[in-house]
Amino acid sequence: MHRGFSILKTATNSNARRGRLWTPHGYIDTPVFMPVGTQAAVKGVLPDQLTGLGAQIILSNTYHLALRPGSELIQAAGGLHAFMHWDHPILTDSGGYQVFSLQSQRAIDSEGVVFKSHLDGSKHRFTPKNVIDHQVRLGSDIMMPLDICTPYGASHKQTDADMAITHRWEAEAVDYWQSLDTDQLLFGLVQGGMFDDLRQASVAALTQHPFSGFAIGGVSVGEPMADMHRIIETVTPQLPPDKPRYIMGIGLPENLEVAIRAGADMFDCVLPTRLARHGQVFMDGHQRVSLKQAKFKLDPEPIQPGCDCYTCLRFSRAYLRHLIQARELSAATLLSIHNVRYLIRLVDALREQI
Amino acid sequence: MHRGFSILKTATNSNARRGRLWTPHGYIDTPVFMPVGTQAAVKGVLPDQLTGLGAQIILSNTYHLALRPGSELIQAAGGLHAFMHWDHPILTDSGGYQVFSLQSQRAIDSEGVVFKSHLDGSKHRFTPKNVIDHQVRLGSDIMMPLDICTPYGASHKQTDADMAITHRWEAEAVDYWQSLDTDQLLFGLVQGGMFDDLRQASVAALTQHPFSGFAIGGVSVGEPMADMHRIIETVTPQLPPDKPRYIMGIGLPENLEVAIRAGADMFDCVLPTRLARHGQVFMDGHQRVSLKQAKFKLDPEPIQPGCDCYTCLRFSRAYLRHLIQARELSAATLLSIHNVRYLIRLVDALREQI
Repeated sequence: MHRGFSILKTATNSNARRGRLWTPHGYIDTPVFMPVGTQAAVKGVLPDQLTGLGAQIILSNTYHLALRPGSELIQAAGGLHAFMHWDHPILTDSGGYQVFSLQSQRAIDSEGVVFKSHLDGSKHRFTPKNVIDHQVRLGSDIMMPLDICTPYGASHKQTDADMAITHRWEAEAVDYWQSLDTDQLLFGLVQGGMFDDLRQASVAALTQHPFSGFAIGGVSVGEPMADMHRIIETVTPQLPPDKPRYIMGIGLPENLEVAIRAGADMFDCVLPTRLARHGQVFMDGHQRVSLKQAKFKLDPEPIQPGCDCYTCLRFSRAYLRHLIQARELSAATLLSIHNVRYLIRLVDALREQI
Repeated sequence: MHRGFSILKTATNSNARRGRLWTPHGYIDTPVFMPVGTQAAVKGVLPDQLTGLGAQIILSNTYHLALRPGSELIQAAGGLHAFMHWDHPILTDSGGYQVFSLQSQRAIDSEGVVFKSHLDGSKHRFTPKNVIDHQVRLGSDIMMPLDICTPYGASHKQTDADMAITHRWEAEAVDYWQSLDTDQLLFGLVQGGMFDDLRQASVAALTQHPFSGFAIGGVSVGEPMADMHRIIETVTPQLPPDKPRYIMGIGLPENLEVAIRAGADMFDCVLPTRLARHGQVFMDGHQRVSLKQAKFKLDPEPIQPGCDCYTCLRFSRAYLRHLIQARELSAATLLSIHNVRYLIRLVDALREQI
């Protein structure tokens, strides 16, 4: 079986690179945009439709799946791929971000973090090992280690303290992963908030471990765009060039462009499907436009003339606006298909240009 | 171009018959179940998916479309087929049923009916001619005339009075239709409530007009099933055998079976998609079962073992239950696909047996 990550080409005018990452469910060509299927489903878009719009890999969330329906249930169903009928690669987030962003009540102790479920208030514990166990049961291709996602605006001291715990947890995770007989990949996850020295320290600490790739977490957490770009542009090139680099949670076209130029390879974001559910679509020039506007009432054009997506090949702005106004379920599906395709095609085009 | 309706075969042990009805968008083989796309969309199911599950013809609603987005807008978009990207036949209801079921405020006068929109309370008028105009602008293949749908429980006197108006309106509609240069079909619509003598009178009055087919309205309006079956079984055979016969608003498997045995050819119902949005599916023996039940939590079977629908070929009850619990949009889509396919396959099988 093929393994590992190959750089196929490097840009001459930026840090951008083309690569190919092998996973247990085949390879992905990077840079790649990963649609998000938080609860074992990309909202409003079926697996066949995802394949049709060029998705190579999707992301799902350990936090959500561990709480509902439970990783044991998914394992009994033959793993996440069989459960959701998606035979291509899947990356699972560790749940760290959700524990620290969805939960107001949580307590970090020496072994991990105790939190209350956002569904029913029941108590749960995540540890560096049990989030790996969850992801092994899910059978994802790329696993992420438990981390603390420090909120934007935290002090240097707080960020440093959180990061130290994250580093301990990740060291535990990588040891545990190596002790297991699994071909699932495990990425390291760099934290350090908005502080360049902490980011540098995080890179230094984590690159000592034999992770399959490295992710930059703690961006797209509410910071000004200039800060996000600074972190991406300074931290990405510090990561080992021979490993895939994943910037977590970004999906705005301009951010994807910055990240790819900085040498990043993988991206995920709920934005395209969330915008779609609110009637918003990407149009030329990366505008986000509300199709609810009265000016589209009689508009016979597709969302974006020239777009090759399923929706644009079939439906007018006038029809899609009608579906939104009429609160038809198909509106979310058709707009999501366009928005996801828009980002996948953007990243594909940027990859081709390298 | 082919025209008209041909009986291909008649059952020996019942009034059931196989037929083929030609419309401007091709033929439909009858008996046929028509999925409902009230607002120019079958809820949660895209046109390609409808074709994939064997839908030959869909129904849409003049009332809803006239109010939103407006029949003029749809005409400007090239008609309903182009607007919603459905190139097969479409039957449009006249709106009579909606005016009399959704509206508490309405007034019948000599020219038609004035009612308030359920969307914004604005005043509108439907007349026998203008509902034809709406449907001509929509460009549906089969049009229905304006009628009064008398509520279940109405007196003989009230039902008779309503029916007399309906007959006048239908006579006006058929004259107007004949004066137009359109290849759209127009069906007559029999009323008469639960009263055998009124039903007989309605058939006698309406069959004097050169309608393309005949519908039985005013069933599935809250009456006991025995009454529904009696009306279907007594009225259907009274309709001209050489014209298609359409029982409006029925979709329960047992009702479809009764209607087909009585010699009816066409049926529509929102039931399969509405049940789906509430997590309910058809299973063997025509049971309606809630997939939310805990007993399906680990169930690896498809909704109905042996079912050939898109959903059953891919997904387990456990996964679908998870989607329902997680309030994922795809749940409605996948359950709708199964339920619509269930009814289409049932009617297809009954047709094959004739």
